[in-house]
Amino acid sequence: MKSRRKFLQTLTVAGAAASLPIQLMAEQTKKQKMIHQVFFWLKNGVDVSDFIKEASVLGKCKTVDKFYIGTPAPTEARDVVDHSYQVACTLFFKSIEDQNAYQVDPLHLKFIERNSNKWSAVKVYDFVI
Amino acid sequence: MKSRRKFLQTLTVAGAAASLPIQLMAEQTKKQKMIHQVFFWLKNGVDVSDFIKEASVLGKCKTVDKFYIGTPAPTEARDVVDHSYQVACTLFFKSIEDQNAYQVDPLHLKFIERNSNKWSAVKVYDFVI
Repeated sequence: MKSRRKFLQTLTVAGAAASLPIQLMAEQTKKQKMIHQVFFWLKNGVDVSDFIKEASVLGKCKTVDKFYIGTPAPTEARDVVDHSYQVACTLFFKSIEDQNAYQVDPLHLKFIERNSNKWSAVKVYDFVI
Repeated sequence: MKSRRKFLQTLTVAGAAASLPIQLMAEQTKKQKMIHQVFFWLKNGVDVSDFIKEASVLGKCKTVDKFYIGTPAPTEARDVVDHSYQVACTLFFKSIEDQNAYQVDPLHLKFIERNSNKWSAVKVYDFVI
């Protein structure tokens, strides 16, 4: 009886050990890193530095992996290059789910509430990497 | 006489030590990290995977600091989100000069020569971070 219980215990442990990597693999497969790229065209009279200060809080949202904020670079003016926006934000997420959570993060919502009257246009590109 | 020479030597060494950080600071100030963000709209019939393989060589250009390539993420369809492109490239450079050098990097020029017939539109955003 004792050895049978032992055998069943061994089976259970072995089963748990075998299923763990499969579960991890499934989670890895589900998780898809992505970049959320945002460009802001600010209304006339809006102070760019102040806006950058406000937008920098977005990097503190819980699910953001990496955050960069910037302004147009003085690179060559070519037809294909758009230098017309004022502020760019690049956000890295470890998964699409993390980006979805960011959309409803209280800090993000507060930023929109406080600042949405400052931009005339916003453009977003989301892509998995 | 000896002490005067010693004094002058001390001055010279002190001067060199003082000017070194200033020079370094000037170089740091000049160097401005930036992101070069590119979106490709491919012509009908162009294989996205093949194009990604071709474009991945851009990450091997000498002055590229970090390189990411991706495709639109299945995030929520909102008016502000553009999901209409097929391929996105995000390139980090340690300076604007490095990005300028990338524009004429032989690997970059070869990529354009081999692939420019595959896209109907390309859009670029350059911003300092």
